[in-house]
Amino acid sequence: MLTRIDHVGIACRNLAEKIAFYESVFGLRQVSEEVNEQQGIREAMLQVAAPDAGMSWVQLLEPLGPDTPVGRFLARRGEGIHHVGYGVTNITAALDSIRASGVRLIDARPRHGSMGASIAFLHPADVGGVLTELVQAADG
Amino acid sequence: MLTRIDHVGIACRNLAEKIAFYESVFGLRQVSEEVNEQQGIREAMLQVAAPDAGMSWVQLLEPLGPDTPVGRFLARRGEGIHHVGYGVTNITAALDSIRASGVRLIDARPRHGSMGASIAFLHPADVGGVLTELVQAADG
Repeated sequence: MLTRIDHVGIACRNLAEKIAFYESVFGLRQVSEEVNEQQGIREAMLQVAAPDAGMSWVQLLEPLGPDTPVGRFLARRGEGIHHVGYGVTNITAALDSIRASGVRLIDARPRHGSMGASIAFLHPADVGGVLTELVQAADG
Repeated sequence: MLTRIDHVGIACRNLAEKIAFYESVFGLRQVSEEVNEQQGIREAMLQVAAPDAGMSWVQLLEPLGPDTPVGRFLARRGEGIHHVGYGVTNITAALDSIRASGVRLIDARPRHGSMGASIAFLHPADVGGVLTELVQAADG
């Protein structure tokens, strides 16, 4: 069902600073920056994988305000890893299968994610404390 | 420098239960189980990626006791994502470059990781709260 680790989502206080850090220290390359009002974030995707080895990304997340999921995460835990996103080829089928196994879905239906992808989050309390996202890429 | 997301490391209280969960809910396949006394963990690697798209893994970590890094993580934060590991082709060169950029290294020299890999951890306080691991695969 899961085809790859699509990305790790990392919560930060200053997006521009963290982009510069990952570019200079780790040599990553920023490929997008978007505001997602629904999720309450400004976010950047930095490419990790070589193009011939399957794409994966570091997703840097800055909250649009304190009263957002990532804003509350920062207040509670500080900067750090916020979630993991796995690639799937058919997100609707994956959600059906996961729901049938008893895991609660935060998103019963896919919604808009980074770079045109369809995404959905699973409830971390049912996935061992891990906020888990499924990602069907726009070209997937 | 970073060639892929090698794995996400997930801290859990019961390794056997979490292996069964990831296998049944997400269809992952366990490929190894090891005890690493130096790190104070029993750990399992579950393959995520298709073989032709670059390997990546979910690494499930159960502490060998409460007075271990993962044991203290569980007491402080509960189950969840513990660290992220990135693939590198030359871990010694990568550590030299990262040290030169001012990031403190937990491991000044590579040590033994899962499945024969050479690994090293970077200090999370210098990587925006993210416990970051470099992994040079045994066949890398």
